[in-house]
Amino acid sequence: MGMTGKEYIESLRKMNTRVYMFGEKIDNWVDHPIIRPSINCVAVTYDLACDPQYADLMTATSIFTGKTVNRFSHLHQDTEDLKKKVKMQRLCGQKTASCFQRCVGMDAFNAVFSTTYEVDEKYGTNYHERFKKYLQEVQEKDWTVDGAMTDPKGDRGKAPHAQPNPDIFLRIVERREDGIVVRGAKAHQTGSINSHEHLIMPTMAMGENDKDYAVSFACPSDAEGLFMIYGRQSCDTRKLEPNADVDLGNKQFGGQEALVVFDDVFIPNERVFLCGEHEFATMLVERFAGYHRQSYGGCKVGVGDVIIGAAALAAEYNGAQKASHIKDKLIEMTHLNETLYSCGIACSTEGYPTKAGNYQIDLLLANVCKQNVTRFPYEIVRLAEDIAGGLMVTMPSEADFKSDTVVGKNGETIGDICNHYFAGNAEKCTTEERMRILRFLENICLGASAVGYRTESMHGAGSPQAQRIMISRQGNIEGKKGLAKVIAGIEK
Amino acid sequence: MGMTGKEYIESLRKMNTRVYMFGEKIDNWVDHPIIRPSINCVAVTYDLACDPQYADLMTATSIFTGKTVNRFSHLHQDTEDLKKKVKMQRLCGQKTASCFQRCVGMDAFNAVFSTTYEVDEKYGTNYHERFKKYLQEVQEKDWTVDGAMTDPKGDRGKAPHAQPNPDIFLRIVERREDGIVVRGAKAHQTGSINSHEHLIMPTMAMGENDKDYAVSFACPSDAEGLFMIYGRQSCDTRKLEPNADVDLGNKQFGGQEALVVFDDVFIPNERVFLCGEHEFATMLVERFAGYHRQSYGGCKVGVGDVIIGAAALAAEYNGAQKASHIKDKLIEMTHLNETLYSCGIACSTEGYPTKAGNYQIDLLLANVCKQNVTRFPYEIVRLAEDIAGGLMVTMPSEADFKSDTVVGKNGETIGDICNHYFAGNAEKCTTEERMRILRFLENICLGASAVGYRTESMHGAGSPQAQRIMISRQGNIEGKKGLAKVIAGIEK
Amino acid sequence: MGMTGKEYIESLRKMNTRVYMFGEKIDNWVDHPIIRPSINCVAVTYDLACDPQYADLMTATSIFTGKTVNRFSHLHQDTEDLKKKVKMQRLCGQKTASCFQRCVGMDAFNAVFSTTYEVDEKYGTNYHERFKKYLQEVQEKDWTVDGAMTDPKGDRGKAPHAQPNPDIFLRIVERREDGIVVRGAKAHQTGSINSHEHLIMPTMAMGENDKDYAVSFACPSDAEGLFMIYGRQSCDTRKLEPNADVDLGNKQFGGQEALVVFDDVFIPNERVFLCGEHEFATMLVERFAGYHRQSYGGCKVGVGDVIIGAAALAAEYNGAQKASHIKDKLIEMTHLNETLYSCGIACSTEGYPTKAGNYQIDLLLANVCKQNVTRFPYEIVRLAEDIAGGLMVTMPSEADFKSDTVVGKNGETIGDICNHYFAGNAEKCTTEERMRILRFLENICLGASAVGYRTESMHGAGSPQAQRIMISRQGNIEGKKGLAKVIAGIEK
Amino acid sequence: MGMTGKEYIESLRKMNTRVYMFGEKIDNWVDHPIIRPSINCVAVTYDLACDPQYADLMTATSIFTGKTVNRFSHLHQDTEDLKKKVKMQRLCGQKTASCFQRCVGMDAFNAVFSTTYEVDEKYGTNYHERFKKYLQEVQEKDWTVDGAMTDPKGDRGKAPHAQPNPDIFLRIVERREDGIVVRGAKAHQTGSINSHEHLIMPTMAMGENDKDYAVSFACPSDAEGLFMIYGRQSCDTRKLEPNADVDLGNKQFGGQEALVVFDDVFIPNERVFLCGEHEFATMLVERFAGYHRQSYGGCKVGVGDVIIGAAALAAEYNGAQKASHIKDKLIEMTHLNETLYSCGIACSTEGYPTKAGNYQIDLLLANVCKQNVTRFPYEIVRLAEDIAGGLMVTMPSEADFKSDTVVGKNGETIGDICNHYFAGNAEKCTTEERMRILRFLENICLGASAVGYRTESMHGAGSPQAQRIMISRQGNIEGKKGLAKVIAGIEK
Repeated sequence: MGMTGKEYIESLRKMNTRVYMFGEKIDNWVDHPIIRPSINCVAVTYDLACDPQYADLMTATSIFTGKTVNRFSHLHQDTEDLKKKVKMQRLCGQKTASCFQRCVGMDAFNAVFSTTYEVDEKYGTNYHERFKKYLQEVQEKDWTVDGAMTDPKGDRGKAPHAQPNPDIFLRIVERREDGIVVRGAKAHQTGSINSHEHLIMPTMAMGENDKDYAVSFACPSDAEGLFMIYGRQSCDTRKLEPNADVDLGNKQFGGQEALVVFDDVFIPNERVFLCGEHEFATMLVERFAGYHRQSYGGCKVGVGDVIIGAAALAAEYNGAQKASHIKDKLIEMTHLNETLYSCGIACSTEGYPTKAGNYQIDLLLANVCKQNVTRFPYEIVRLAEDIAGGLMVTMPSEADFKSDTVVGKNGETIGDICNHYFAGNAEKCTTEERMRILRFLENICLGASAVGYRTESMHGAGSPQAQRIMISRQGNIEGKKGLAKVIAGIEK
Repeated sequence: MGMTGKEYIESLRKMNTRVYMFGEKIDNWVDHPIIRPSINCVAVTYDLACDPQYADLMTATSIFTGKTVNRFSHLHQDTEDLKKKVKMQRLCGQKTASCFQRCVGMDAFNAVFSTTYEVDEKYGTNYHERFKKYLQEVQEKDWTVDGAMTDPKGDRGKAPHAQPNPDIFLRIVERREDGIVVRGAKAHQTGSINSHEHLIMPTMAMGENDKDYAVSFACPSDAEGLFMIYGRQSCDTRKLEPNADVDLGNKQFGGQEALVVFDDVFIPNERVFLCGEHEFATMLVERFAGYHRQSYGGCKVGVGDVIIGAAALAAEYNGAQKASHIKDKLIEMTHLNETLYSCGIACSTEGYPTKAGNYQIDLLLANVCKQNVTRFPYEIVRLAEDIAGGLMVTMPSEADFKSDTVVGKNGETIGDICNHYFAGNAEKCTTEERMRILRFLENICLGASAVGYRTESMHGAGSPQAQRIMISRQGNIEGKKGLAKVIAGIEK
Repeated sequence: MGMTGKEYIESLRKMNTRVYMFGEKIDNWVDHPIIRPSINCVAVTYDLACDPQYADLMTATSIFTGKTVNRFSHLHQDTEDLKKKVKMQRLCGQKTASCFQRCVGMDAFNAVFSTTYEVDEKYGTNYHERFKKYLQEVQEKDWTVDGAMTDPKGDRGKAPHAQPNPDIFLRIVERREDGIVVRGAKAHQTGSINSHEHLIMPTMAMGENDKDYAVSFACPSDAEGLFMIYGRQSCDTRKLEPNADVDLGNKQFGGQEALVVFDDVFIPNERVFLCGEHEFATMLVERFAGYHRQSYGGCKVGVGDVIIGAAALAAEYNGAQKASHIKDKLIEMTHLNETLYSCGIACSTEGYPTKAGNYQIDLLLANVCKQNVTRFPYEIVRLAEDIAGGLMVTMPSEADFKSDTVVGKNGETIGDICNHYFAGNAEKCTTEERMRILRFLENICLGASAVGYRTESMHGAGSPQAQRIMISRQGNIEGKKGLAKVIAGIEK
Repeated sequence: MGMTGKEYIESLRKMNTRVYMFGEKIDNWVDHPIIRPSINCVAVTYDLACDPQYADLMTATSIFTGKTVNRFSHLHQDTEDLKKKVKMQRLCGQKTASCFQRCVGMDAFNAVFSTTYEVDEKYGTNYHERFKKYLQEVQEKDWTVDGAMTDPKGDRGKAPHAQPNPDIFLRIVERREDGIVVRGAKAHQTGSINSHEHLIMPTMAMGENDKDYAVSFACPSDAEGLFMIYGRQSCDTRKLEPNADVDLGNKQFGGQEALVVFDDVFIPNERVFLCGEHEFATMLVERFAGYHRQSYGGCKVGVGDVIIGAAALAAEYNGAQKASHIKDKLIEMTHLNETLYSCGIACSTEGYPTKAGNYQIDLLLANVCKQNVTRFPYEIVRLAEDIAGGLMVTMPSEADFKSDTVVGKNGETIGDICNHYFAGNAEKCTTEERMRILRFLENICLGASAVGYRTESMHGAGSPQAQRIMISRQGNIEGKKGLAKVIAGIEK
């Protein structure tokens, strides 16, 4: 089958990806301490797929070749596939306690696959065949692909073609015999740097005049003219501290966001999947967003599992695990987390086949799922902070706990003092273990991982209001009025 | 196939069921205005099953005979059956805006079926075969059966055998060659009077000394020694008013609760399904409660659909339908309602086969489902009251709107005055239609139907704390701690 | 000082007030079982004022005469008076567990007093002096006055003068030398029938063309041309049942709402307080609404106190009072209730003098107060229903508990059976006491008193959106932006 | 009057305070970039007191000397003083958007003042006179004093004397003629390093055997044997970045927490205010905690004001300010913030005099206040994150925006690209201004200031459960039961 995590990391080294951070070019970005945790996350999606015990969730059978492929590049063949997707994401969330970034590609594959079929049906184009070839290559090479949708957008009240800055939505600047040249950027790109490829889609409904903006295509991350500027996160530089370990909370894993810039990038025809058929932008957006709103009912639930476990440990280490209010808060966290999972599962099992044959999720329930994700993780985090206690944010640094500097009258070092006063429930933990759990919670509540668990839960796959609009459209209010009229005796 | 609604109602007339209300025996209880709406609800479960457009949801194939039977007496054969159960319940909720009562029997059938199998396996008893014969008869005669669990309970801190009042839990008072004699009562019995049969189960975990209380059996509603005392509901006597229509809000449908008393009732052996095997009481309770907590993710969602429709109509009739806050509240109601549905669907699709072969729901998710049902309907109702406006509770009676009594200087009647001042958005509704929708909302928010939509959502299938205990047990907190230890670097 | 409760009731008998209910004229409305509980509530405001232990809260010194008067007809002289108002309301709520109705008059007095002063200042009219004379008479005669604001409103999108039905807002139909003739109605009038007088105010901002609608005046409840149609409430007719007691939940007290119709009523000049000065309608509305939104931080808190007590008793009678989740729910109810009280107190202590000299509450905080009242009582009621248990809505009637009809094999009556199975914690209560508490909770959660505790909390003194608009206007968002600009380094 | 902010900072330089951070001693801690923002916050409490426009809130008249002193060292003389305290805190919160740390001293002064009075009354000690002398010196020298209560606590189930580690609660290790020697530590000490003095109090109820732990005293921050270990915060080292400005979000202000260690510190008798009178520990804790729970109804409200302003600006800069859902979210934030303020004001105006003559807040309402503070700031922050949009956490660094490194085909630098793509609503802001507001929100939501606005709101002045216990004790549940019994007809 596909690559191991290690092979994946090596494959990244071979690419000429251009990455900028803190105003400078980062040469060895693969080993950069700020970037590496996000690479490790994606590596997990490879390693788990190589592990037989997770084969059912992590792999699938290619519809092109019949070979076993990573589920992240699979086209959903039925509602079981949709459910397994959610379960795979929960698993990856549990193993990383982070955003593992690879699902945007999977969601883009399934959306582009079904949409190109319908574009071709209408226009006689051959996008669908092109895309199938591309996806077969993705599966064979076991690539990670960034599914990229969000443009910088500029003035929210204006259409793409009417923006003062014409580049503020990504667009075709030249149409050539052999392909197109594109310019613009995709913002908030999760997992863009550590992807082999980018699969670009338009970001919203478009009109007749926006034809140049109605474009979908794929290109490698190191395509000529493409570069990325890394977004900074809470506590990012803590990862640069010498021997950083405990203070990181989650040493190995993390997320990543970047601005991906297309500075006149040439895209050959065989990688172009939409090129001016503006009325299909909406379909592509709704399908991708639908899949991606489903995703949050898996990945964030997995992270939630780790948070609940950490909160339970914190209570134990603090010696408070038997208090009824602590138990009740853990139940509430579990309840909220499983409600999210229920929504992820429900929109999957209620999926339906597209014309192209792959399966789409239930759009109403997927939006309901994501809407809950914009709320419950915040409450889960609040409860975790409650259980953790104030020490989570007042604890001295790892360097203090390990310091040999003498401060006490009897020769005690800073380390001695810290260990003397911050020891927890000795039957359950060492002081360092207590620190580790509290730092993990700090990281997820207000450190680097809060970006993934909180803000991404809020805005990823569309901000809350976007889901409300979809719920309004999909909620069949007229049908419900009809039910009420009959019961109330207004209609028969 | 089975009976029509009309045939069902006629079949009730043939029974000698003993019903008491307001301190007296009710002879023609089938046509009693307070009781009839609950009978009409059950009748809907017959009529819909006869309607070809609902055949897929409302009917199933008997595993005993291969014939088509009402799904309410079906044993779930796979997760599709479990999902269809939820959808059938949503449909019935949409058609009645009430508790339609028949699902307690269905949930009891499935729980008793699988539990008796395991009792027999351990003890070599033949409860399972007995039960299969019984259920086959239920299917053939298309009976409605009250699945009865809740005893009056008395002192919550004492086991059944230790209660000062030995009858406070239903028990075996005599064991005979040909059967047993039971005494006691089942309280809060929804849909007991209009059932043909009662299927009794123990209400909680039991110990060695509670053997006489560990009993499950079936008997007809008019068994000798069995009688019922009707529980009174908010606004019950409004149904007795002459020509009551508009003021009822929901003229045709409603719920029903009663105390079912077993005054030394003889149960022949072939209808006894548990008789002293106390350690199986827990299994029976958990399985029945699990199914029933799933149910609420269907039935209350259907009622919710009608409420949302009614609130949307109320806004329209008030002329407020375009206000952004009104739209937003309707979205929120839809969001909450569909979250409940997602939980109902999720615990179904994650079901698994029992040893006996029928399917059980996912216990964790079913408890999460019900826990949400103890919250969201209250918020849905609050939002409906917000949208409806104060007129919902200050409006004069139907009799006023129709009164010919002259009150005005120019000869206006009370009816004229009411219609003059309470006219709504004339383009959308007549004044009576506006009244009808507001009375429907009154009925569901604080009238007779509030019993079913609010209090039953709270306490039916177990009070909130019961679900929290199950969530705690099923939440695998130790596994979650393990995940956190690995991420935090405490364990490998 | 003023009347006793009994004298108040007798004073009502002397009036020729015209009341219609269920399509007919009610002659002896004072003793009508549906109406009487609301009269009893107002009577409490008289009796408490006669009780020396409550003198500080219930009485005040007239600014006109220096005599002691009922605080309900007092003009607030400082922030202490404003706080005492809230405390008086909490007290009355505790004693009645109902809306005691008399505060609309008090709020109207204070709003009309200060507004007429400013109208006179601008126009040289003499409304203020007229009003002072009127209020002095109110104080002397110790009248209860209905402060009436809400018109039926018709099409929400149109101004009064532009409505198809010109009467849908109350208006001046004739201007005479000695006074005016008014036509129209005031809807949702709490405590209108049992008031001696009505003090009418316009219901919203008005423009140049709405001059005929910009009218404020007072008249007796039995003025020629004035009549009222009683609004029906949940469970209203339960009060008509013979010997009704336990089933009422709150036998003695209740609320009342009516449509008050002005069928060409003549108002002499000395009772006219606004007559066409349309630009002052807004001031009058905001001031009255402000006071009335403050009120809810007292009255509903008092009712909440009784609900919390009842829930605690229900737990005790059920034998569940030691469960940690029960204790926690009682704490939560207390917390929510005291938060409402805090808002009531805060908007009072932050009050300020008007030009006329009486005190106005802080408008922002009063709106915040009422906004919370549209939420927390619903959660308090939800928690009360949780604690009460399902018996609250499944319990047989009082008639059953007292019935001599024999039903059991050993001659047990219905009453025997009910008492046998519904006995609670015998050390704490009789069965009847348990019933009483559960019926009280039924009454407040979904019976007649739910109208006052829930729907009135939602819509009384303006629906939730009305408060949000005021919060937006009063929130000084520009000032807050300025603070943020300085901190963020955008401005110095 | 007192010092200016600048003088205060200079006064700190003169002290020999021992501070450790990252395992090392910090010599010039006054100018250390991580520590300095917290010093600047305290400096604001001096500068505002020197500004005549804030004199009414920021200053008061000494009861000892009649001179004008900073309100932070004032003894509350009436409820007006208590309200002004809350308003002063709101003001300081608005000016710093941080925890300004000085209120713990004020709260300790008032608690120790009244408690020592009652200790002396019982035991004939002279703690009260000692304390008055001390406080007079505090006022004259305009010192900032850390009121210190929380011990590390160790095993939560054991009393101080029964702990395995005897130092885990601070205690008297030696009693001498001229004073006492103390050992132990106070944890989570907000504003400890930048205080001139520490005023120590016991942390919980104590028994007969805990006499050595029942100790209250004052000492200078640089007392011999006293040292502090700085707690690390989210994003702390961002402050060390060269030229850090925009990325800090709040460049000038911040909070501070430390472990304060007493390594056998000698305290002369005149600074000892409790020494073994263990039964007064509870009074001291409840009074201090009561004041401090009141405080949060001021300080966090001020910070909330800045967050609301920043969210409104972010919406404007994003071009989304007219969307109805944005407006509604700003209203909700305002509503929640003012509810907190209402609680702060209400517990103040309902205060009462102690035996010693200063004023104590209403204990029930102060606990209700703090309980709301453990909830609403989290929701305010969630709504701010919603309004801000994802860019808040995906935006490149300040260094990128200012970088001259060329990356584009046409010579565009990283700075050019960032400014090209991240420009906001050009009519309202520059790109840098947009960054500044988003970074401010990042800082308060998940950066350094989240420690103060979120976690401190949760655990400062006692964790949520501590307030619930107090609400339970203060809620007079028996009185409420009595009210319900009367209404329900159980008692007369």
